[in-house]
Amino acid sequence: MNIILVDREEVTAAGLIRLADHRAAHLVGILKKAAGDTVRLGIIGGAAGTARILALAEDGSVELFFQAADAARRPPFDLILALPRPIMLQRILFQAPQLGVARIFLIRSERVEKSYFQATLLREAEYSRVLRAGMEQAEETWMPEIHIVPRFRRFLDEVLPLHAADWQAAFVAHPEGGVPLRQHLNLPLAGRAVVAIGPEGGWIPYETSGFRKRGFLPVSLGRRILRVETAIPVLLGQLQLFLPPEGFSSSP
Amino acid sequence: MNIILVDREEVTAAGLIRLADHRAAHLVGILKKAAGDTVRLGIIGGAAGTARILALAEDGSVELFFQAADAARRPPFDLILALPRPIMLQRILFQAPQLGVARIFLIRSERVEKSYFQATLLREAEYSRVLRAGMEQAEETWMPEIHIVPRFRRFLDEVLPLHAADWQAAFVAHPEGGVPLRQHLNLPLAGRAVVAIGPEGGWIPYETSGFRKRGFLPVSLGRRILRVETAIPVLLGQLQLFLPPEGFSSSP
Repeated sequence: MNIILVDREEVTAAGLIRLADHRAAHLVGILKKAAGDTVRLGIIGGAAGTARILALAEDGSVELFFQAADAARRPPFDLILALPRPIMLQRILFQAPQLGVARIFLIRSERVEKSYFQATLLREAEYSRVLRAGMEQAEETWMPEIHIVPRFRRFLDEVLPLHAADWQAAFVAHPEGGVPLRQHLNLPLAGRAVVAIGPEGGWIPYETSGFRKRGFLPVSLGRRILRVETAIPVLLGQLQLFLPPEGFSSSP
Repeated sequence: MNIILVDREEVTAAGLIRLADHRAAHLVGILKKAAGDTVRLGIIGGAAGTARILALAEDGSVELFFQAADAARRPPFDLILALPRPIMLQRILFQAPQLGVARIFLIRSERVEKSYFQATLLREAEYSRVLRAGMEQAEETWMPEIHIVPRFRRFLDEVLPLHAADWQAAFVAHPEGGVPLRQHLNLPLAGRAVVAIGPEGGWIPYETSGFRKRGFLPVSLGRRILRVETAIPVLLGQLQLFLPPEGFSSSP
């Protein structure tokens, strides 16, 4: 836990916060904080900053005073993902806040097992818990939005158009037909980008051509075959290089 | 398993191979291969190519004829890693062959728990098994070499000099003091590169300055705090962009 995250309702107008759950236990028991110490704290969907510990109560609760330093910023990347099996999805959700992901579309694809859409992890309470752990790791206050679309065609025809204006660049991972991202190095990528990554086994041709018709550039990640959970940080790490320095950390 | 891997001793001078273990079971049971079919096959430390199935015996064994297509190539990156806890090391070892890693130095650092060096996973039989699974995923025939150096100072003074001539560029991940890799974009990175990644909590200043004195450029991966297992694919993915197209897949 590199940052303590709180919900907006937990902060009073004066900036006071009282924690009485595992976060209080973490502050006192693990971080060994005492009254007067400061700690990194952020409001989910809001600002990040520091909090000073005002008092530790005998019941284990902690009172803090919060001062915002950085305003909320929407991370630069959206992710379209052929729904992976739950154990892999869990790792991806934990990684996403570290990688600057603002939104994740979990969609059907020919090579996705239908049963994956029944996974417990797709319940909001479940995936929010994993995302939150990833945000605590990343020092990120933006919780990625999750959109679940169990039909590929519907996603392309009805969901994509709603968001297209939001992206300055769109890529589809495509081992056979793609070119390395370095060939797009002169791309004027000042805004937000979206990346579509297929299932183990890849998109089928109908699917890649669907993305390409809608302006997605095919990219290859080299001759080695990457697991989805590896392809995501590789591709988003590469894209990060194309953004202006402030781009990776700004623009709502 | 995207490629069947065999040891050199398993291939006769005429290119014949007989498999009788889990690989034969995989070919027949999972891939549903029959006589006459071909399959991707590679020799560990040697060439990759295709193998034609000559016969399936009643005892479940499989006879194949191998034809090499791509010569063995040493991947472009070496990795210096403050030894992570075993569960994380396991994921990193599985990822390494996917990321073009030729050699991994597992070293001590101030913030590494001494007990990690007792992990079962540091036995050759154990880590080779995990690396091999990663190679089967990546379609890679190069098995990363593992060097375990339980003293930081000894690593810098005695081990690093033996390999320095091998690297055209060297980087140390350094969240506070580093600059984004984009600022090195004009780097003439035609050869091999090495990357040093610290433990959770980071290198201590003495350690980063030790690397810097030996020519390692400090790089930052942005304002978010990455787990080691995420920092590795992000940084190696970024470096991949700097290599010439053939660089990611060639040069012994």
